Amino acid sequence: MKQINLESKILGSNELLARKNRHLFEQLGILVLNLMSSPGAGKTTLLERTIEKLNGRLKLGVIEGDLYTDQDARRIEQKGVQVIQINTEGTCHLDAAMIGQAFADLQEYGQLDLLFIENVGNLVCPAEFDLGEDYKVVVLSTAEGNDKPLKYPLIFYQSRAVVLNKIDLLPYTDFSLERFLQDLENINPTAQTFMLSGRTGQGLAEWTGWLLEEVNRKKQGTAREP
Amino acid sequence: MKQINLESKILGSNELLARKNRHLFEQLGILVLNLMSSPGAGKTTLLERTIEKLNGRLKLGVIEGDLYTDQDARRIEQKGVQVIQINTEGTCHLDAAMIGQAFADLQEYGQLDLLFIENVGNLVCPAEFDLGEDYKVVVLSTAEGNDKPLKYPLIFYQSRAVVLNKIDLLPYTDFSLERFLQDLENINPTAQTFMLSGRTGQGLAEWTGWLLEEVNRKKQGTAREP
Repeated sequence: MKQINLESKILGSNELLARKNRHLFEQLGILVLNLMSSPGAGKTTLLERTIEKLNGRLKLGVIEGDLYTDQDARRIEQKGVQVIQINTEGTCHLDAAMIGQAFADLQEYGQLDLLFIENVGNLVCPAEFDLGEDYKVVVLSTAEGNDKPLKYPLIFYQSRAVVLNKIDLLPYTDFSLERFLQDLENINPTAQTFMLSGRTGQGLAEWTGWLLEEVNRKKQGTAREP
Repeated sequence: MKQINLESKILGSNELLARKNRHLFEQLGILVLNLMSSPGAGKTTLLERTIEKLNGRLKLGVIEGDLYTDQDARRIEQKGVQVIQINTEGTCHLDAAMIGQAFADLQEYGQLDLLFIENVGNLVCPAEFDLGEDYKVVVLSTAEGNDKPLKYPLIFYQSRAVVLNKIDLLPYTDFSLERFLQDLENINPTAQTFMLSGRTGQGLAEWTGWLLEEVNRKKQGTAREP
């Protein structure tokens, strides 16, 4: 009984902090995306390619979540955008408190158009923690197999967008695109779906086009000038 | 402070139950492997191929861990071995209590030579829970990238064997075998390393050869007749 009480207390306090983050992001007119996936699905490579396409057009920031290392943050920094590293020291997800602190540490955070949060590589824990983001985005690699929406329904259900990455590997796997799309349709029929390869760049334009649209939509909904 | 106390209490009770499981496995002379990986690294396919090679020579059993579905258990059952499904209902790892119960539910568990536990797909949480197994085995797919030992050091440090799966995809990825082996050498120099493809069967003989050796070694260490 004690365990359950404690857990609901922890989630409760996370919800409060997530609401605080969301309110701040609203006030500043910043679109915030929470990127989640298995380890190695290609979140960081997708971010690198996305930054190459959008930097200059939008003011971008990245918060990187990792257990111990800052490898991904260093990769992102080389692309010339502001990045803050969070090391969870073994914890399997980011939470709203971590994001609140990291966001305040970003230089010129008030000027951002688009903030990416790269969560810890994990299809289970991150889905349970609201960070105050506008949208959750789940990235799946074709190499992981088409059964993942059925096996990890919560994360696919919660995501506004689903990115099927490593589409260039499709011919070399047993991934069934048909079954994947059918399962996704059952779990989350309104998800925006993108099929792309962060490695080859194939399909990236649809993804970055959607990001630009959503950034504009967010700005129009706030007092800040576009 | 409360949280930390509670956590150590939970881990403490898991350790006791893991010790109980280990004692039972020792008495019965069963080799028990705890298979861990990211979602979609290929644990189930590896098990299918392993069963095809070893069934008839060894008495095999499988405990399948999944959040909600029994897809993997059904795949294993078709191969003609005893299998028990554990659904964790959202929990990101198996624990010793679940294994103790599932093991007792296996028909003829006392006759087994080799028990595989397929953990929940996750590189973080499962590493923290002893199940009473002989060895942890971590499976990594080449599609996930060579940086995983550095990013998830605990699971690679703890594993007696490391299986690099989907070796057939290597030519189509940026995976650096050299850096992977170097990082692994730094984190866990005594790990047994296998490079194979569950899909094509390449490299499987070394893996099944090692399993046979370890089963024999286990039996020789116990009172039970080989």
